[in-house]
Amino acid sequence: MGADGRGDLASRSVARRLVVIGGDAAGGSAASQAKKRDPGLDVVVFERGRATSYSACGIPYWISGAVEAESDLVTRTPEQHRANGLEVRIRTEVIGIDTSRNVVSWRDLESGAEGEEPYDELVYAAGSVPMRPPVPGIDAQGVYGVQTLDDGAALRAALDSGRVQRVVVVGGGYIGLEIAEACRVRGLDVTVVDMSPTPVGTFDPDIGSFIADAVRGEGIELVLSDACGAVEVGPDGRVRAVVTASGKELPADLVVLGLGVRPNVRLAQEAGIPLGTSGGIAVDARMRTQVPGVWAAGDCVESWHRLSGQRVVVALGTHANKQGRVAGINIGGGYATFPGVIGTAITKVCHTEVARTGLSTREAGEAGYSFVTAVVDSTTRAGYFPGASPIRLKMIAERRTGRLLGAQIVGKEAAAKRIDALAVCIWNEMTVDEILSLDLSYAPPFAPVWDPVLIAARKAFDAVEADVRSL
Amino acid sequence: MGADGRGDLASRSVARRLVVIGGDAAGGSAASQAKKRDPGLDVVVFERGRATSYSACGIPYWISGAVEAESDLVTRTPEQHRANGLEVRIRTEVIGIDTSRNVVSWRDLESGAEGEEPYDELVYAAGSVPMRPPVPGIDAQGVYGVQTLDDGAALRAALDSGRVQRVVVVGGGYIGLEIAEACRVRGLDVTVVDMSPTPVGTFDPDIGSFIADAVRGEGIELVLSDACGAVEVGPDGRVRAVVTASGKELPADLVVLGLGVRPNVRLAQEAGIPLGTSGGIAVDARMRTQVPGVWAAGDCVESWHRLSGQRVVVALGTHANKQGRVAGINIGGGYATFPGVIGTAITKVCHTEVARTGLSTREAGEAGYSFVTAVVDSTTRAGYFPGASPIRLKMIAERRTGRLLGAQIVGKEAAAKRIDALAVCIWNEMTVDEILSLDLSYAPPFAPVWDPVLIAARKAFDAVEADVRSL
Repeated sequence: MGADGRGDLASRSVARRLVVIGGDAAGGSAASQAKKRDPGLDVVVFERGRATSYSACGIPYWISGAVEAESDLVTRTPEQHRANGLEVRIRTEVIGIDTSRNVVSWRDLESGAEGEEPYDELVYAAGSVPMRPPVPGIDAQGVYGVQTLDDGAALRAALDSGRVQRVVVVGGGYIGLEIAEACRVRGLDVTVVDMSPTPVGTFDPDIGSFIADAVRGEGIELVLSDACGAVEVGPDGRVRAVVTASGKELPADLVVLGLGVRPNVRLAQEAGIPLGTSGGIAVDARMRTQVPGVWAAGDCVESWHRLSGQRVVVALGTHANKQGRVAGINIGGGYATFPGVIGTAITKVCHTEVARTGLSTREAGEAGYSFVTAVVDSTTRAGYFPGASPIRLKMIAERRTGRLLGAQIVGKEAAAKRIDALAVCIWNEMTVDEILSLDLSYAPPFAPVWDPVLIAARKAFDAVEADVRSL
Repeated sequence: MGADGRGDLASRSVARRLVVIGGDAAGGSAASQAKKRDPGLDVVVFERGRATSYSACGIPYWISGAVEAESDLVTRTPEQHRANGLEVRIRTEVIGIDTSRNVVSWRDLESGAEGEEPYDELVYAAGSVPMRPPVPGIDAQGVYGVQTLDDGAALRAALDSGRVQRVVVVGGGYIGLEIAEACRVRGLDVTVVDMSPTPVGTFDPDIGSFIADAVRGEGIELVLSDACGAVEVGPDGRVRAVVTASGKELPADLVVLGLGVRPNVRLAQEAGIPLGTSGGIAVDARMRTQVPGVWAAGDCVESWHRLSGQRVVVALGTHANKQGRVAGINIGGGYATFPGVIGTAITKVCHTEVARTGLSTREAGEAGYSFVTAVVDSTTRAGYFPGASPIRLKMIAERRTGRLLGAQIVGKEAAAKRIDALAVCIWNEMTVDEILSLDLSYAPPFAPVWDPVLIAARKAFDAVEADVRSL
């Protein structure tokens, strides 16, 4: 590279250059895989923050203190990436992409210096931006996000100050509840505000109500079917309360925004890289955008949902890693595809585990499916075995065909990870009739002799048959 | 029924009669399902023991004291079955089947009375008999089995006597190790003798050695690649020691036989009901034997192994329940099939969990497959998450096609039940290439961002590709 920050054209003629925008899960994976497959490739990664390849999903557990050090969340530091032959520029933001000249322009956030970097291949892995409700006071001091490691550090510092006792979390989805738990573990008074009638609105209400009970049982207050209407600021310029849309005043020393995220596509849009119907960047199975030489991966892209057939944006580290890997393999001369998602998700709120895969009843209806459902209450071990704890499992099966469309699990210990078996069933388009005969593992410390999955499949099959008879 | 024990022919003309031999998992399920589907059916269940529909798999945990009462292991007592309209005769052994006259002859084990019972449909669910090595002293006082609830009661009484400190368990498979753990939990000195070089010989040696270390770490002595050569009896007529085939003398106050079981087919053989190549009763997908009107289910039948294509006998409560249900549905006028097995199994030895599905390397070789393997060491939670514990996962994939043929897991907490996802992969004949892209659940308390299953699939896929390049 020349001293002016422009690419050295002479070197471009001998080595292909890959530029990656974003150095977290997707960008880091893409860069690493491409370099591994094609060691001659020049790879430059731009990262706006201080850290690369870290677990954003782990931030709540760092906030709670369960994870001790920020560095525990980092899989690969910039130094480690550099040792693998990547050029990594942290605190450097890409501010423009010129797809006609194949260059990106960047700004060093410390020095303010700007420059350009040419590319042969570009990976757009700019991640997501947190949703911020457009309400008064939202930018006040004391309102925190939990999107990046830098956000996490700021929030943790605020909590460590000892001046915070009352926390309001705006949003009762996965991240909102995880942060609520973290604050509760720290002994704080926590209220969660969510627009849905039950928390984690991607679960059906009958599962969500179980989650609500569990969350309240942990001493977390839930304000449901409501929203953050305004953030009230005290004379000191700091947050004082959240006022909900319905007019409730929730005193708060600190507010955390846990409303989820939307794809960070601004730069891509400005550069004319087409988005899909979902608002994420449109990519094909190999993670190519519609602009030659430009790839995209991670929270900013849309994925094919294998059940609804729709394009969806799912911001999740595991997808970001897989998509980055696929892009990197392809850039490095290999062949790989990302086969889409089926909406699998899992979390733990204090002592309650929840998981889902496939479509919820609402999503199945929106996708045009007609279906039956079955809910069973069973135990995680044989009923007589010490430590057997309750597990509730719901299945959603298509009418007539009996194809499993979705499943949800809620329970205490050793419950939620069982969703994976059902995710594989859905992936393979199995019917509940097929599922009830599966050779799943059985021993008293792990399951009743009829595994909860099999019992639910039997019940769902009965529902399918009863429905067929009624047609 | 007539007073002489013969069937009342007049009543046969109005109600079909189902006779079931064996009142545990398979027999109890068959009887219940048939009666549920066809309430007009006369159902008579003969059970040699005192109990019906109990969890034989739970016996070790009753021995250890983890399960308090014998009655906890019973799903349905004879009285409960009777309340559902079944005629249940406990302590009554069927001693002959006449398939030309459609009658069984029986003996009341209490009174010695004998009689005959006619049937229209017969379910043979006689279970299994424990293997007994044909060595001197094997019938001595102090040698116990753990096959039936009555066996368990006898063993528990012996241990409760307080005169037992040194226990030798013959056989280091699932049941042998479970009993060894139970005795260890009771504070006894336990030695396990097994013919394989590693315990649970159905696991590959590299997984088995991990199990061996764990078992020894719990203070259980393992004598491997050896066998019970003789049981030495003291002057009081009681067991004094086990002498191994290699000549080791293992002092013992009590010996438990945990060598596994073989199908109990004697009566069926005498009646001309054909066995299959595996030694179990041959049945079709609806659990019909080759004799009209005679069905069979449970430990005494052979099943189709979906990977090897062979017929195998797998004595496992979960299969027995499913097969009994299938027989009962068909007898009751419905339609159901048992689609075979893939060799899934799971157990826990003290703090170590192990599980397998599909074929081991030895079994895959015997079935004619050529394969590659991959072993990964990962963690059950994100590496930085408190409580993350080690998990080792092995995959066996077919050469060229990459089809998953088998998987084995060993770990501490929250490890083994993950085998179910892989069982579903195998059931659906997925390749490791397909598996590595699966949408499995991810959150730091449940998995690293690359789930151990996905990491193993990636590594197995690399092995498949390397092998293809070498061809």
